[in-house]
Amino acid sequence: MLTRPDVAIVGAGPVGLAIAWRCASRGLRVTVHDPAPGSGASHVAAGMLSPVAEAYFGEHELTGLLAESAARWPRFAADLAEASGADVGYRADGTLVVGLTADDLAEARRLWSYQQGLGLPITPLRPSELRDREPALAPRVRGGAVAPGDHQVDPRRLVPALRAAAERAGAVLRPARVGALSEMDARVTVVAAGCGAADLTELPVRPVKGQVLRLRAPGRGAPDFRHVIRGYADGESIYLVPRDSGEVVVGATVEERADTEVTAGAVLRLLRAAVDLVPELAEYDLVEATAGLRPGTPDNAPIIGPLPGRPGVLVATGHHRHGIVLTPVTADLVTDLIVTGEPDPLLAPFTPDRFGKESRWN
Amino acid sequence: MLTRPDVAIVGAGPVGLAIAWRCASRGLRVTVHDPAPGSGASHVAAGMLSPVAEAYFGEHELTGLLAESAARWPRFAADLAEASGADVGYRADGTLVVGLTADDLAEARRLWSYQQGLGLPITPLRPSELRDREPALAPRVRGGAVAPGDHQVDPRRLVPALRAAAERAGAVLRPARVGALSEMDARVTVVAAGCGAADLTELPVRPVKGQVLRLRAPGRGAPDFRHVIRGYADGESIYLVPRDSGEVVVGATVEERADTEVTAGAVLRLLRAAVDLVPELAEYDLVEATAGLRPGTPDNAPIIGPLPGRPGVLVATGHHRHGIVLTPVTADLVTDLIVTGEPDPLLAPFTPDRFGKESRWN
Repeated sequence: MLTRPDVAIVGAGPVGLAIAWRCASRGLRVTVHDPAPGSGASHVAAGMLSPVAEAYFGEHELTGLLAESAARWPRFAADLAEASGADVGYRADGTLVVGLTADDLAEARRLWSYQQGLGLPITPLRPSELRDREPALAPRVRGGAVAPGDHQVDPRRLVPALRAAAERAGAVLRPARVGALSEMDARVTVVAAGCGAADLTELPVRPVKGQVLRLRAPGRGAPDFRHVIRGYADGESIYLVPRDSGEVVVGATVEERADTEVTAGAVLRLLRAAVDLVPELAEYDLVEATAGLRPGTPDNAPIIGPLPGRPGVLVATGHHRHGIVLTPVTADLVTDLIVTGEPDPLLAPFTPDRFGKESRWN
Repeated sequence: MLTRPDVAIVGAGPVGLAIAWRCASRGLRVTVHDPAPGSGASHVAAGMLSPVAEAYFGEHELTGLLAESAARWPRFAADLAEASGADVGYRADGTLVVGLTADDLAEARRLWSYQQGLGLPITPLRPSELRDREPALAPRVRGGAVAPGDHQVDPRRLVPALRAAAERAGAVLRPARVGALSEMDARVTVVAAGCGAADLTELPVRPVKGQVLRLRAPGRGAPDFRHVIRGYADGESIYLVPRDSGEVVVGATVEERADTEVTAGAVLRLLRAAVDLVPELAEYDLVEATAGLRPGTPDNAPIIGPLPGRPGVLVATGHHRHGIVLTPVTADLVTDLIVTGEPDPLLAPFTPDRFGKESRWN
């Protein structure tokens, strides 16, 4: 590529690569700059597509964007499979939200009521219905609900698929670190650098540490449960994501720290909650314990849109716990903005200028 | 080395290498055969030198050998440091044996009474004395005792030190696997192959799986406790071995299995017991979870001496949980037997012929 690119993207995680794929498919000349594609938060992420179970009090606009993006996922996954030739492990088995103790169940119910009030699809189950759906749950689990529309994908399959699709569409990957936006020479620069966006843009993006385990069913078969399980267990909030490969992802801590050490206490809490909810997990192999850094923002919502005071620079970062589910809508909105110059109304609550003229919001 | 060696040793773990060092130091021509020196049980071992805390009911003769070998350790470590130029982390801070609950304490006390009855140095402490010695212990620990003569060494420093000492004394390491004793051409062959001895000799040596964790104090300082801690915690029996480097070894399961997978349930049990006994361990990094295979025998005692029906073949294996503490006495007894032809009376309870003419004792 000898001519100046139309779009230069900083960051080859799912968001950056999806934007590259979509833009290149629209005929734009695209470069993607990252010394280690897929090595950020997505490497650790579980890949839950959870607009319902992740709908929390006071995050109404984020909940809407999660639902919009989750609705785009089936088509996105199908398009991506066709464009890349790879399967990203999209599974629509749904999610069970369960409470171990009476206290845990009370906490879960408070959230279900809120989610039902928003009209979101979550249905409480009688204990017998819960066990009919997942006999692997511990008998002492007090109750639960099903969110049939909360699905999953495998982030470690997503990144190479997106990369293949982007490169087949003509995007060029440049495996080098970008130290400053002044290094970029393109009509539009997109900062999709996760936690790295803070230094490049001075936006209030901060690392939020998450520790995650990967177990594997003995004998290399699939796990004995099919649903994603989100559990409240003696005050711990965890998730269990089963994959066809036999892998079960157990996560995750949420810590205001910037290191990536795995700590004994976090592993203990995750394993204790996991085994309390699904006892057979005690017999699974523990194959990986890792920590990653999510790009968090002051309001827990992503930052998508033009960077104030920097013409030609767009931002797509701060996806925090929602990077995988928000990948399709982020890519679509950014690509449309680049192609048409007109921001979609969906973007309005998420643009960088919400943090005011004082860009250091921390 | 073009001439036929005097001694060919199968296995370059601590026992094999110590025999090599001692024999070479006596002027014998020695070869040691192992494709991966130090990769067996010693790689996972914690390195406790515990003749007292490991004195169990019904193992009187083994207890005597443990005490004899532990008494040889200070001199052995000093000789080895001089011969190798390396420090093996010998520490004489002593061992605390503690019980978390009243039930745990009752179980521990039963064993202390037995050990005291044998005249072994173990002294019960009042709870205040216990906490004075190790303030890091959890307040809920019900009681304990001190075994001042139970020390520690670092097996991962021991193996390279022994290898250096053996090679400096003239021993030659051959990094190849020995498939059968008929491959060996030496005046004396010594089988020190751990679990591998079963196939080579048909002696009743079986793998006993142990899962072990390695934690590291945050900030890279030394752990806040100095003693080896052996704890009974809600029915779990574990040990915590602090090292100057900041490492704390937490072990170990005892499983009649031959795989080396790390399981979620074992890690959970080890971490729970560790954090219950020493709460600050929750903040330590979890840097390694591994499983190894100890060479177990029907009576839990090692097998040392001439292999029946095979002139010129000696055996030094089956050290089970005691390979590190028994290294000095094993090396001394085998070397003396090779040099003098006369078995030390200490060997009598441990010779291979105790399993009878029918060598398949399993």
